[in-house]
Amino acid sequence: MKLTNALSIDKIMFDPNNPCLFCNSKQSGLAAENDLAYASYDTYPVSEFHCLIIPKRHVVDYFDLNDDEVIACNNLIKQIKEEILLKDPAVKGFNIGTNAGVIAGQSILHCHIHLIPRREGDVDNPQGGVRSVIPKKQHYKRKV
Amino acid sequence: MKLTNALSIDKIMFDPNNPCLFCNSKQSGLAAENDLAYASYDTYPVSEFHCLIIPKRHVVDYFDLNDDEVIACNNLIKQIKEEILLKDPAVKGFNIGTNAGVIAGQSILHCHIHLIPRREGDVDNPQGGVRSVIPKKQHYKRKV
Repeated sequence: MKLTNALSIDKIMFDPNNPCLFCNSKQSGLAAENDLAYASYDTYPVSEFHCLIIPKRHVVDYFDLNDDEVIACNNLIKQIKEEILLKDPAVKGFNIGTNAGVIAGQSILHCHIHLIPRREGDVDNPQGGVRSVIPKKQHYKRKV
Repeated sequence: MKLTNALSIDKIMFDPNNPCLFCNSKQSGLAAENDLAYASYDTYPVSEFHCLIIPKRHVVDYFDLNDDEVIACNNLIKQIKEEILLKDPAVKGFNIGTNAGVIAGQSILHCHIHLIPRREGDVDNPQGGVRSVIPKKQHYKRKV
């Protein structure tokens, strides 16, 4: 078989959705778990201790979670947040967010929630936080 | 009284935390509500129909929500998402996210969750989504 470009090589060598990466996480990679969800530190961290909270059931995105799964994920978010604060007193805030759909930046099509620790000076101007998904709209001046 | 700079004027003229803007939203501005939370379209939308989901109880951030409030917020997220999809078939994805702490971009210190509709072409490369809170870490190349 002839491979026509680098993208083809990459897709054949590793597709995180086939088989689903988050249905097949190694137990050794778990930061925490409960009956319905688990937490795993991100392989490509945005900041140190960036963690993913992942329902065990294969659902595509956050909208598919049932109430029990939402609470299970939230319990892990709170638990991991406390652990991070103990590990690193420089952490002064967090962004919590999830992408639903490829057009929104989702690459692994198994729901996952990002818990991203934030520290003084990690960006020039943090105002707006998750608003930065559309960069030109991150910063705004409040009308009087 | 002499005002020494523009920042002072701005703070005196309008501080969204004193009184808390989200404890005092006008009923006419509500998109939806339930017993414990309400939804309101963002005054400075990142994209058309960008909506905020806000617990009625004054809590500073997402970590302070109790389980009933998390579910109440999530019910509104799902309801508003369906309404947006009906209003605009061009919406193909969503980012859901919240900032906890000024250092993470939170400006109004009453918990609020952003529901941000996404459309084809709204950014050059949407990969990473909420990872963009630290812009240089938004895009990454998956290791083989």
